[in-house]
Amino acid sequence: MAKVKVGVAGYGVIGQRLADGVALQGDMELVGVADVAVTLSVRALREKGMPYKFFLAAPEKREEFDKAGIPVSGTLEDLVQQVDVILDATSAGVGAKNRLLYEKYGKKAIFQGGEKNSVADVFFHGYANYEKGIGAQFLKLTSCNTTGLIRAVDCIDRKVGVEKVAITIIRRVADPGDYHRGLTNALQIDKAPSHQALDLMTIMPHVDATGILVHTPVTHGHIITVVATPKKSVTPENVIEFFREHPRIRVVSIAEGFLGNASLFRYARDLGNPRGDMYEIAAWEDTVVMSGKDVMFAINVPQEAVVIPENMDAVRACMRMQLDRIEATDTTNRYLGIGKWRNVG
Amino acid sequence: MAKVKVGVAGYGVIGQRLADGVALQGDMELVGVADVAVTLSVRALREKGMPYKFFLAAPEKREEFDKAGIPVSGTLEDLVQQVDVILDATSAGVGAKNRLLYEKYGKKAIFQGGEKNSVADVFFHGYANYEKGIGAQFLKLTSCNTTGLIRAVDCIDRKVGVEKVAITIIRRVADPGDYHRGLTNALQIDKAPSHQALDLMTIMPHVDATGILVHTPVTHGHIITVVATPKKSVTPENVIEFFREHPRIRVVSIAEGFLGNASLFRYARDLGNPRGDMYEIAAWEDTVVMSGKDVMFAINVPQEAVVIPENMDAVRACMRMQLDRIEATDTTNRYLGIGKWRNVG
Amino acid sequence: MAKVKVGVAGYGVIGQRLADGVALQGDMELVGVADVAVTLSVRALREKGMPYKFFLAAPEKREEFDKAGIPVSGTLEDLVQQVDVILDATSAGVGAKNRLLYEKYGKKAIFQGGEKNSVADVFFHGYANYEKGIGAQFLKLTSCNTTGLIRAVDCIDRKVGVEKVAITIIRRVADPGDYHRGLTNALQIDKAPSHQALDLMTIMPHVDATGILVHTPVTHGHIITVVATPKKSVTPENVIEFFREHPRIRVVSIAEGFLGNASLFRYARDLGNPRGDMYEIAAWEDTVVMSGKDVMFAINVPQEAVVIPENMDAVRACMRMQLDRIEATDTTNRYLGIGKWRNVG
Amino acid sequence: MAKVKVGVAGYGVIGQRLADGVALQGDMELVGVADVAVTLSVRALREKGMPYKFFLAAPEKREEFDKAGIPVSGTLEDLVQQVDVILDATSAGVGAKNRLLYEKYGKKAIFQGGEKNSVADVFFHGYANYEKGIGAQFLKLTSCNTTGLIRAVDCIDRKVGVEKVAITIIRRVADPGDYHRGLTNALQIDKAPSHQALDLMTIMPHVDATGILVHTPVTHGHIITVVATPKKSVTPENVIEFFREHPRIRVVSIAEGFLGNASLFRYARDLGNPRGDMYEIAAWEDTVVMSGKDVMFAINVPQEAVVIPENMDAVRACMRMQLDRIEATDTTNRYLGIGKWRNVG
Repeated sequence: MAKVKVGVAGYGVIGQRLADGVALQGDMELVGVADVAVTLSVRALREKGMPYKFFLAAPEKREEFDKAGIPVSGTLEDLVQQVDVILDATSAGVGAKNRLLYEKYGKKAIFQGGEKNSVADVFFHGYANYEKGIGAQFLKLTSCNTTGLIRAVDCIDRKVGVEKVAITIIRRVADPGDYHRGLTNALQIDKAPSHQALDLMTIMPHVDATGILVHTPVTHGHIITVVATPKKSVTPENVIEFFREHPRIRVVSIAEGFLGNASLFRYARDLGNPRGDMYEIAAWEDTVVMSGKDVMFAINVPQEAVVIPENMDAVRACMRMQLDRIEATDTTNRYLGIGKWRNVG
Repeated sequence: MAKVKVGVAGYGVIGQRLADGVALQGDMELVGVADVAVTLSVRALREKGMPYKFFLAAPEKREEFDKAGIPVSGTLEDLVQQVDVILDATSAGVGAKNRLLYEKYGKKAIFQGGEKNSVADVFFHGYANYEKGIGAQFLKLTSCNTTGLIRAVDCIDRKVGVEKVAITIIRRVADPGDYHRGLTNALQIDKAPSHQALDLMTIMPHVDATGILVHTPVTHGHIITVVATPKKSVTPENVIEFFREHPRIRVVSIAEGFLGNASLFRYARDLGNPRGDMYEIAAWEDTVVMSGKDVMFAINVPQEAVVIPENMDAVRACMRMQLDRIEATDTTNRYLGIGKWRNVG
Repeated sequence: MAKVKVGVAGYGVIGQRLADGVALQGDMELVGVADVAVTLSVRALREKGMPYKFFLAAPEKREEFDKAGIPVSGTLEDLVQQVDVILDATSAGVGAKNRLLYEKYGKKAIFQGGEKNSVADVFFHGYANYEKGIGAQFLKLTSCNTTGLIRAVDCIDRKVGVEKVAITIIRRVADPGDYHRGLTNALQIDKAPSHQALDLMTIMPHVDATGILVHTPVTHGHIITVVATPKKSVTPENVIEFFREHPRIRVVSIAEGFLGNASLFRYARDLGNPRGDMYEIAAWEDTVVMSGKDVMFAINVPQEAVVIPENMDAVRACMRMQLDRIEATDTTNRYLGIGKWRNVG
Repeated sequence: MAKVKVGVAGYGVIGQRLADGVALQGDMELVGVADVAVTLSVRALREKGMPYKFFLAAPEKREEFDKAGIPVSGTLEDLVQQVDVILDATSAGVGAKNRLLYEKYGKKAIFQGGEKNSVADVFFHGYANYEKGIGAQFLKLTSCNTTGLIRAVDCIDRKVGVEKVAITIIRRVADPGDYHRGLTNALQIDKAPSHQALDLMTIMPHVDATGILVHTPVTHGHIITVVATPKKSVTPENVIEFFREHPRIRVVSIAEGFLGNASLFRYARDLGNPRGDMYEIAAWEDTVVMSGKDVMFAINVPQEAVVIPENMDAVRACMRMQLDRIEATDTTNRYLGIGKWRNVG
């Protein structure tokens, strides 16, 4: 069967990882990546010997690329013509403009969480509403926090039902290497309810969700606490067991040495993962407690890589590569090596 | 009426502020403060011209104090003999030892949150259980987080009843000036339930409380989110109104410019408050939302000064200065200037 | 003798402290302060009961001020007419515009380090070139880092001559309470030479200066290391002694407990100074070492308050209040309480 | 020719990278690694399927390892017997104890910078004093800061001679994932001169070195500014050219987007390097300036991986694998892929 041809627009924190993710999918072909400037990420691509073809989304900057010694294989428009689907990870707001180009050539596109919902036909999550994405032209993924959160809430919901959730997002404020944003010795609070709670309700309309978000001066890994009201009674042990069965959730413990988000960042680096990335969220088993009949727990969301698997799922859905949610997500997982660790030892 | 004679043991972050607080109470007399080493706080006391008498809790270090030019008015034992009650703000664990000295002279003592509960007869909070402290010999205050949290929960509880709370403590990990502890680019999570939730239940046994605590690399102001299940139905507006009526809670908003804990730290400094301190917790009105019939909100707890008023209350209770909770707390508030700001403009 | 009438334009981090500083000068009268928005600093002014009259620099926002209950005593133009000299601490770039207003009424003005040099006739430092400021209409102060640095270099220069300096500025990246800028887990380096080195040469043209600046994610206190080539041979002891004699330099040591910038921030708070401010720079005696015939040392610059004394000096110079450098700076120091600590114990 | 058999004692931040480095050397064989506890690094080794044999340095903990499913291939003593040379990266102080074991079996050993100098016969740096290490039984490497610093100073010294250096070390205070140490919103200064300056003089005794070290709350990459007095006159362009020719120094610029240590950390991750590591130091060309005849510049030292190449050099020296400094370091570089990037494009 012919591989699905995929392009990536925007080669930043997310775009790079999307490209790597596509390159690992045995049934997809990464045609190339596009960006607008000679960023450090593009310089790194060159230093690696151009494993991916580069297309220039700002043709007027061609000279800068020539000067920097970066081979250019065409324009973004060229790239669009050569693919079946585009993963658009450009800066927030650009996707809406790019959509016109995708429409011009009748190509499918998958946008990221920073875009407005109106850019897409369907707001998508691989596990929670795969079916909605099947065959759609324009999908929008949830943001990193929401993607990780929905994995956990959907996982419980499919077992015992979830009536409502109240979340506290302890958000990392910048990515490693960011100099354009940051907080120094300050926590910053957002007006409630947080958009992540609202977004969750768009994907899971039967759940009542609210939440408060606090930005913290760290660079890797959001921590979210969730107070969930289940429809059927559960114990902490039940919930831990639900998490253990989910391919994209790692159950970890403070006792093992996972003391916080930095432990998980280090662990992924110690695994030798490219860029030190981790696709799974983590749930701390030592944090699962009851509040009356509600269950409370904490998860860690590795913001740089967490959305990659769900993006692969989105390609599968919109391209009708798999029609079944589990078959699709399992395929993504297998190619990304997710869950391999479960079988070790 | 004779003033109640008070001594402060331990002249660190809390001890200094206790001394200042006592000095402001028109019906108390600060006999002196005690510590064991020539710390920066003690050097500052000297630079200010010794407004408080200093007693040396480690007499063997007398020479160091002489060398540093710090007048010593006696030993801790001398201080104990001259007072009616000691506020003990020594390092965790020392209080239990000091208690023997207080017992020897039949003096009352008030310990801080870091000590074990067994050090005291009563675990005390000025608003939530003032009556329990009346006449007691040994009281223990709640920690800074718990003190601030109980103000908010007790405030709602007295209006509509509170059945249970699930809290997320976003904790500042060190005080300004601390070099002996700190986190760098990391969030650290504690085993649940947090001790603050357990402590709340000791003071308010009719409330079911649980919670998760996450340490963050900032130095001023814990932020706590609370999901509270009220006994009677409430609206966000109700809860905001309850908070507004509480003398030790400031209702603030993001819209006014209170973007996070650092805004409150700066605001207290801009007020010209000594040490830039603030006694009140803050509740953000833009964070009060409903989760079903539960109410969720966020408060800010200025960890260095928040416990000072409740310590003054504790002196009042154990010394039987006032027998009524409101009369006692109002007296404390008046001397500390709490609530004066309400009448401005 | 009539007091010199002073106004402050811009009531932010620096403006507030300028106002406080002027209010302390026995031979100056603070007519009022001006700003453009209902900031937290303005809210704090109101909460304190309006100790300073407030003039509105953006008259179109009058309604907002009325709504917030802040009494307005007129416009900036009104303020300018009532004063002899304006201390302009508005945001960078605004001063140049305000200058037209000051010119219109023939008033003197003192601008801060963030303005372009062209805004003023003289680039001023109280100790290094007081004479140049005498009678001038428009002065510009050096930035916080440069002000502190020049204190130390000028101090050595007047004793033994300084041929050249190579400085490393370890810069705090934001002020406490800042949410509009910040770094998270990153050091940021600027193109060399740093502007502080260039600015030093403008004030002290006989010294060859260069330097590298690195921004660090902290909020209080720049640390600068200086490698200075003296004209006459010196020892570390000499240099420490020079510093000790300077009224605006505190000689501190790690041994005493001054472990870094946070110790000094805490110490100023423990002194009970309003806002926890300190006017003096600190020089660590344990860091003074020789590099061949060069001397190397480290100083701490409290960025919020360090320029206040030199601003007071500037008023004295441009208003011809004192014609002698030492008489002027001593007068400023006496009113600000600088050096009082030397006489303690 | 038989490969040199190498073991690694201590499988922490450095030990893991030493193991990876040895595994990449075509003329060495990694026999195994040893540690004392089921750390996250050991858990990661297991999750990767035990690419390296694990030896238990604390046999009494065998049960813990069995419980965690980690295959144990013997004790540290077993490992020592099977190797020619041990790279000892245990916690500071343990190396001195382990040395007795290495002596017992007449094996060579290479210790890290944290150990006391007395543990080794020779204090070693691959570029600066390779010859001293040839055939020695016990070598000690310089610390990460000193290793990087010496690369730069030795590089200039071999071209034009260096008379003296005055350095300012802006030190990262913890590694990513560290929870046992950290600073929060504070710079911490050490007594001068810094040990790195003293250590440099041990390796390069003809250079007069001094320096001041300031700890900063970041986790990746020390920045060092160097003021170097060359024996022959140089220009900034000369120095940049010297750096460009050095295989283990990358010349970077702010203009390219390398804004600070976090840019380099991100860049190494974007290269897809295992663990996101970089072996080279970076020198910013935009920071090279003259201070009279002295040259000043700034370098970045990636503390986790920078010492790995010099450790490989040390194996080559003590095992007499190469007798020539350049042949040895070039061999190390080739196996580690250092300098490959120079040939791209």
